[in-house]
Amino acid sequence: LSCTIEIIGVGNELLVGKIANTNAQWLSRVITSLGASVRRITDVGDNIEDIASAVKEALYRKPRWIILTGGLGPTFDDVTLEGIAKALETTLELSSTAMEMVKERYERYEKITGEKIDLTPSRVKMAMLPKGSNPLKNPEGTAPGIIIQKNDTTIVALPGVPKEMQAIFESSVQHLIKRTAGDLIVYEKSLKAIGVIESTLAPLIERVMRNYPRVYIKSHPKAPEPIPIIELNFSTSSKSLDTAKSDVENACRELAGLISSQGGRVEEI
Amino acid sequence: LSCTIEIIGVGNELLVGKIANTNAQWLSRVITSLGASVRRITDVGDNIEDIASAVKEALYRKPRWIILTGGLGPTFDDVTLEGIAKALETTLELSSTAMEMVKERYERYEKITGEKIDLTPSRVKMAMLPKGSNPLKNPEGTAPGIIIQKNDTTIVALPGVPKEMQAIFESSVQHLIKRTAGDLIVYEKSLKAIGVIESTLAPLIERVMRNYPRVYIKSHPKAPEPIPIIELNFSTSSKSLDTAKSDVENACRELAGLISSQGGRVEEI
Repeated sequence: LSCTIEIIGVGNELLVGKIANTNAQWLSRVITSLGASVRRITDVGDNIEDIASAVKEALYRKPRWIILTGGLGPTFDDVTLEGIAKALETTLELSSTAMEMVKERYERYEKITGEKIDLTPSRVKMAMLPKGSNPLKNPEGTAPGIIIQKNDTTIVALPGVPKEMQAIFESSVQHLIKRTAGDLIVYEKSLKAIGVIESTLAPLIERVMRNYPRVYIKSHPKAPEPIPIIELNFSTSSKSLDTAKSDVENACRELAGLISSQGGRVEEI
Repeated sequence: LSCTIEIIGVGNELLVGKIANTNAQWLSRVITSLGASVRRITDVGDNIEDIASAVKEALYRKPRWIILTGGLGPTFDDVTLEGIAKALETTLELSSTAMEMVKERYERYEKITGEKIDLTPSRVKMAMLPKGSNPLKNPEGTAPGIIIQKNDTTIVALPGVPKEMQAIFESSVQHLIKRTAGDLIVYEKSLKAIGVIESTLAPLIERVMRNYPRVYIKSHPKAPEPIPIIELNFSTSSKSLDTAKSDVENACRELAGLISSQGGRVEEI
């Protein structure tokens, strides 16, 4: 797959184990289904230096996309945009389009609650974007996302709140990735292998992958002795659904045969 | 905190969104409670080049520890040890201690199942370790972990199966990290702020953090209008539990007062 993507999660909560990076998981799943491929996921803290160095290192590897999540809000430790600006050796400037998005959101909030919302520095901060970037409308919250081009890489920053991250991705980013990914179709299937241990399976998997070089087979041990259970995931990508499907089905059939010759059996999942 | 740690998760399943990296979450939580601090989490695929470059880049940042999870098993795509060897510019060699651990495990399996287990290349592979490393006994599975020193950084590799990863960490790694982390105690407390929006809270949090520079306060929006709910996490680390506790409690009290002056209120969580 040629459209490679790196994901950078920003937030101290990721580094102290308060949460797992389920944003990266959600994005990876969607990106894979679009025919693009996530090459690396990096989590860093709410810290300008660490964000900037993660972005610079990712740029150095020349992925087609870098997607950051988290750190776009109004608080002092929301510093993702500053980190991106530093990585790109530029500064933040007020985006009037982003400011309109933020204002619109607060006007809505004022109407609902009757409370008056002033445009304090914390609020204006969400419209201070790295020079050259465009804001992405946030249908579910206040802080806009951003998109900015650097050489052949497109950088996107999205909020960390999952509902907001997903809404901006689906409304403003997904179709662009789909376009850069081409028309690859990803096809996968999982089987459960019962009664053979992983080290017995290993050479059988290798043999089937040699026979079906476009199919990738990954084993995940689920239960050890006395009756081992191993999940087998078969996947491939192709421009043709028919090719993808028949490659995977044939590889499944061949491996199932080899497993039963070793005294095991397979079940569909 | 001066004992910094980087975690590297290895596995294509992380990059296609099949699972979230809950191993990194578990490790981060335990490491934080030991008084050490996770600086970065990186996920890469089952690919020697990507593993090697993640390890080399981490070494360049000079953390006290690098902990890898995943890719230690018998299958062709378990290549974490090869990746580490490449990063350290060394090769793999058979460790007789590791070989004993693997054999012992299979002898146990033979006894339970009556099945004869030959030492095939797939099985011997788990005892081929980067030169200079020592194996770590796996109480829950076959593949041993490893530990190896590079300059001031200790590198540890653990299996990806959570039960095995946790068992090796708890029996062989935890006490070593505790020792390098010193005697820092981490203290934290969470409050729910109700009825003020995040951009109103932002300058209040900044003020309290200026008054209590050892306390870190992070806000997590939980619900938007009409009645906003924001979780506030207060944390600090100190050699004295009394100091840690009174810093956090005082900071909580001051922020609660500021929130109620803005028409909101707080609840303990």
